[in-house]
Amino acid sequence: MKLKVKDLDISTGGPLIAILNWKDSSELDLHYLDRIKIIKGKKIETVTIDIAQSKKMVSSGRIGLFEEVLQSLNLKDGDIIKIIPARKPTSIDYIKKKLDGFKLDKKEIEQIVWDIVNNKLSDIELTYFVAACYANELDLEETTILTNAMAKYGNTLKLKRYPIMDKHSVGGVAGNRTTMIIVPIIAAAGLTIPKTSSRSITSPAGTADTVEVLTNVNISINKMKRIVEKTNGCLVWGGGLDLAPADDKIIKVEKPLAIDAKSQLLASVMAKKASVSATHLLVDIPSGKGSKISSKEKARKLKGDFISLGKELRIKVRVIITDGKEPIGNGIGPALEARDVLWILGNDKRGPKDLRMKALKMAGLMLEMGGKAGKGNGFKLALDILKSGKAYKKIVEIIKAQGGREVDPDGIELAPVTYDYSAYKDGVIKEISNRAISKTARVAGAPQDKGAGIYLRKHVGDKVKKGEALFTIYAPNKDKLDYVKDVIKAVDGVVIR
Amino acid sequence: MKLKVKDLDISTGGPLIAILNWKDSSELDLHYLDRIKIIKGKKIETVTIDIAQSKKMVSSGRIGLFEEVLQSLNLKDGDIIKIIPARKPTSIDYIKKKLDGFKLDKKEIEQIVWDIVNNKLSDIELTYFVAACYANELDLEETTILTNAMAKYGNTLKLKRYPIMDKHSVGGVAGNRTTMIIVPIIAAAGLTIPKTSSRSITSPAGTADTVEVLTNVNISINKMKRIVEKTNGCLVWGGGLDLAPADDKIIKVEKPLAIDAKSQLLASVMAKKASVSATHLLVDIPSGKGSKISSKEKARKLKGDFISLGKELRIKVRVIITDGKEPIGNGIGPALEARDVLWILGNDKRGPKDLRMKALKMAGLMLEMGGKAGKGNGFKLALDILKSGKAYKKIVEIIKAQGGREVDPDGIELAPVTYDYSAYKDGVIKEISNRAISKTARVAGAPQDKGAGIYLRKHVGDKVKKGEALFTIYAPNKDKLDYVKDVIKAVDGVVIR
Repeated sequence: MKLKVKDLDISTGGPLIAILNWKDSSELDLHYLDRIKIIKGKKIETVTIDIAQSKKMVSSGRIGLFEEVLQSLNLKDGDIIKIIPARKPTSIDYIKKKLDGFKLDKKEIEQIVWDIVNNKLSDIELTYFVAACYANELDLEETTILTNAMAKYGNTLKLKRYPIMDKHSVGGVAGNRTTMIIVPIIAAAGLTIPKTSSRSITSPAGTADTVEVLTNVNISINKMKRIVEKTNGCLVWGGGLDLAPADDKIIKVEKPLAIDAKSQLLASVMAKKASVSATHLLVDIPSGKGSKISSKEKARKLKGDFISLGKELRIKVRVIITDGKEPIGNGIGPALEARDVLWILGNDKRGPKDLRMKALKMAGLMLEMGGKAGKGNGFKLALDILKSGKAYKKIVEIIKAQGGREVDPDGIELAPVTYDYSAYKDGVIKEISNRAISKTARVAGAPQDKGAGIYLRKHVGDKVKKGEALFTIYAPNKDKLDYVKDVIKAVDGVVIR
Repeated sequence: MKLKVKDLDISTGGPLIAILNWKDSSELDLHYLDRIKIIKGKKIETVTIDIAQSKKMVSSGRIGLFEEVLQSLNLKDGDIIKIIPARKPTSIDYIKKKLDGFKLDKKEIEQIVWDIVNNKLSDIELTYFVAACYANELDLEETTILTNAMAKYGNTLKLKRYPIMDKHSVGGVAGNRTTMIIVPIIAAAGLTIPKTSSRSITSPAGTADTVEVLTNVNISINKMKRIVEKTNGCLVWGGGLDLAPADDKIIKVEKPLAIDAKSQLLASVMAKKASVSATHLLVDIPSGKGSKISSKEKARKLKGDFISLGKELRIKVRVIITDGKEPIGNGIGPALEARDVLWILGNDKRGPKDLRMKALKMAGLMLEMGGKAGKGNGFKLALDILKSGKAYKKIVEIIKAQGGREVDPDGIELAPVTYDYSAYKDGVIKEISNRAISKTARVAGAPQDKGAGIYLRKHVGDKVKKGEALFTIYAPNKDKLDYVKDVIKAVDGVVIR
């Protein structure tokens, strides 16, 4: 059947979709989410169909195309194309199989991941896959295959080096910007650490957002390789590299139900590590009230899962369970966090001690894993590298390699309107809620507004007097600040006893 | 936040969706599939958001709206509206709960169904519900609640009559147009039978498609009530009545994976019966090779489920398991089937015997259920009503009440181009495949082209000579016929031994 293209001037954000008028679809006996091949000259693309019931949207004789399809076939409004019915992707049968509770083999999982990466599945079909893996948890063998497949169908970084170090934090703790301190220490010690980080999704800043205050993070994989070969390390945004791209698509359909299938979380993290050819990985699992992993028991279970999967993937994994009950560092928000980091690396006494200590401990363990220090001596080596100024020199080198310039921490631009939130009574701080502090910093504008956020003046255990500042809010204007004040009343983030 | 409406000129076919530019959504800390309230004057509507990454689709300061939202708020391109963040529907928590394997209570299931009916859930969220009910099968109590909720949130037909008879066939058998023979017999006997039927989805004709050859089937619920009060029966299209509308939305997301959650199949059928206040129901489960229910064991299990659910709903259910291995009747396709039915009702000897016998048996059972005949005497009464011409008189009465005129079966217009498909050898017919015959009839143009289809000249068990006609194809033109001939080669529908 020949049809005339209608440019719908809208993108689906992934899936390849075409809309047919119901008359044309009936004639070809095609139904919602069936597949067709669109043929234009020598180019062929298989797409999923949706059906227009009214001729207002797509009239008979026309085919409505979304941007992804137009681009893929280089089509424009008014072009004439030919369509023929096509089979559904075989991965749909495998998804059904998993939903029925059966185990999937390598061929099946690889086909599913390939189809996800190449936009061959509709959101509904992908959702069935996520639901199937959640209701019928993948076992270790399936998780290993999934991880390898996610890494394989995407970009990979190959380096002629050994070992290749990496770190990962499970997240959920405000601040906690250890990566930017660890990477320069490890790289300065002569180990290779091609670090990729994410931007914030629901937090006031991801590591990539904070690095971006100092330098460019949107780096191609080839450039990343050259930077790592030159400086031993990098601090780039993972989202721009197309590493394990299936993962992002899976996360998109997990969010509506806040699905966190354990096997998928593991595969998601480890696939990105496998993509950069990591050989040694330190995982930080913050645990405690108000963090992502609320109980020690859950944390220990997750630790075991990371180590088992690491063995299968031949990545040497070490896991530490850390205190996740309050924010780490003082700055919350990209610019405020970047300033903390530079103060610590510059041995400025204003650098927050909790963040410095946690980063040194983690860097120490990694130096031991990478063979640069004997068991128990890593911390000392990390401290030496920090104190000597070598770590500071290294981060400046990385900043420059990524296209930035040396930055004076006191010159980092913060949001102009500030407000001190003060203690409502005398006492000792019992609790600072990660969730409440994060929410407040986000409402103030972080991470979009890099200078916005919160600067903590006190931590858990500190004595405070009524009226003393607990934290300072940084907002871009007074309207926003007033809104933040309203939100603070509702979230009640600091408990004084 | 105030935004200017962009009419996207496209409909979603259900879910209420708005598209924001990523800058605006970041500022409000909104993510994919979050909810917002759109406010225009006194009108408020809660919708799901999608996020545009490019300004080409929706630029900052604008909100892209699909037809459903524009209609709901009576908006047009360029209007200024206000948006505020809104909570997600609580039903999302309940869906997650079911996916986690927990049992749902009445309040939870009713909320889910209400949200489905009112387009409050995205396709992804609805898919999670279907997957959850499939992976963690609903028990009888949950199925009962779901059935009642599906019936409750939709139109219902209330009649001051008792009993109210109904029938249902699980489907999968080509032809099998028993309903059009049973309804006039039952109604002529003085029982009430407000029959709704579906159109074809994947078959060459649904009962509604076949009735439509003779009269109007798209009838409002009020008119349906008047027709039933006058004639005791009707033969209308259920899809036009908005009975149990949640069901259609659920089926839409089941199709891509051919999900057939048993509890949902049961709820789907029974909710439509509850919507018309049926008190007595005869269910026909065709079973055998090539039918939907392939084994006798599965058929017996399904029979038990129908009866149990019927008890909970206080609908008296009787189930017969029939032979589903070959088509029933000779005509396959709306016009050819309608002709068969009128021949049978008119006592014309050309009426197919297998269809006549099956319909009489079923009608007989229903006459017994409804108290018009003693046990074992229903068949005879049904036969009397048929032979006496009362059933024919009754269908003419119903046809007229629905807006049609008496039709001469030999005057029904069939597709003009015919072709006899003949036996490839001497022998006895061992098998006629429902699937192959249905596929062939659809390719010939049924049900869109009402006159197209197949007319069977032989049935299983008949002796044939090489070259003798097995069936006749009716196609609208020669091109189509040639295409049908190609398809027949591939499907190989008739086995001769």
